[in-house]
Amino acid sequence: MPLQMSTTKQTTINGVDVDALTKTIDAIKHETNLSAFQFRARNTWLGGGLNHSTIQGFFGAGQERARAASFTFKADEPPVLLGDDRGANPVEFVLHALAACLTTTLAYHAAARGIEIRSISSELEGDLDLRGFLGLADVRKGYHHVRVKMHVASDAPADQLANLAKFSPVYDIVANSLPVEVIVETQ
Amino acid sequence: MPLQMSTTKQTTINGVDVDALTKTIDAIKHETNLSAFQFRARNTWLGGGLNHSTIQGFFGAGQERARAASFTFKADEPPVLLGDDRGANPVEFVLHALAACLTTTLAYHAAARGIEIRSISSELEGDLDLRGFLGLADVRKGYHHVRVKMHVASDAPADQLANLAKFSPVYDIVANSLPVEVIVETQ
Repeated sequence: MPLQMSTTKQTTINGVDVDALTKTIDAIKHETNLSAFQFRARNTWLGGGLNHSTIQGFFGAGQERARAASFTFKADEPPVLLGDDRGANPVEFVLHALAACLTTTLAYHAAARGIEIRSISSELEGDLDLRGFLGLADVRKGYHHVRVKMHVASDAPADQLANLAKFSPVYDIVANSLPVEVIVETQ
Repeated sequence: MPLQMSTTKQTTINGVDVDALTKTIDAIKHETNLSAFQFRARNTWLGGGLNHSTIQGFFGAGQERARAASFTFKADEPPVLLGDDRGANPVEFVLHALAACLTTTLAYHAAARGIEIRSISSELEGDLDLRGFLGLADVRKGYHHVRVKMHVASDAPADQLANLAKFSPVYDIVANSLPVEVIVETQ
């Protein structure tokens, strides 16, 4: 089901500029090469379980998009996983990405349909068996289960809201398989 | 192939305490219920494309693990995606999580085998067709391709290092499918 615009005259719904959203959709409908996006990150190891990423430019809607400033994030491990807790760990960042994406997706898709959302909060849990990472058993290395509970203040039915949230790109990335090419160059 | 300990007497390799890693592995070998971990995040919507997550406690190695302080991360969208660039966006956080996890995994698994790593840096790209998110075409909503290039200063062969990096939990999460349960409760 495509994202359909409501006929409301209010131009901002859920904090989303619905006029701008309509224009984006129309532009991509008429020129599909505008829909190609490429996001990027660079990471540097700082020793042990500590490293940091820098995120700045990306490509989207037909052109390179430079940001004035970059975003940087540390990742570390807690002491039980031999780190010093100087940042959230990588699998925790996956939960943040998933929560953020489900939330934004719900706000945008509801706005496009004229559905008002008053608040959204969520709690996420990811279950992992460390034997996978350690190579001690034939179990998967990543989460074997993720649960998301979203609390939404809205008059729309919960089922409809869940279906809108599932337009989320990160939900797709986590729930479904994806080709990930890893090339190592030594020096 | 299980993670195998080297016979070197150096206890810290790649910034990883190899004695502690050996003890962790031995403990989990003898008591497999120590291998269950649960990571968590909470997220609150701040309107439009802006929201923030809080990450603090987790369960691991048989007990609840409270951190003294929480980690908080904003997510936002750039202007072309109708946000105000107050944070990296959710799909960019996926690249950070993936980069961080491949890096830490390589450092730990190399350390366990006595392989010294002098430096690691990486560049990641994720390709996405916005028509998926917008519901305008039958293409996937998330990345359709992710590429990771890792530059590693080490005397070990590149193929071996790539295989060690792929013990990464986030690599598994992104590359393979996973049950993600999304429950919406309205109020």
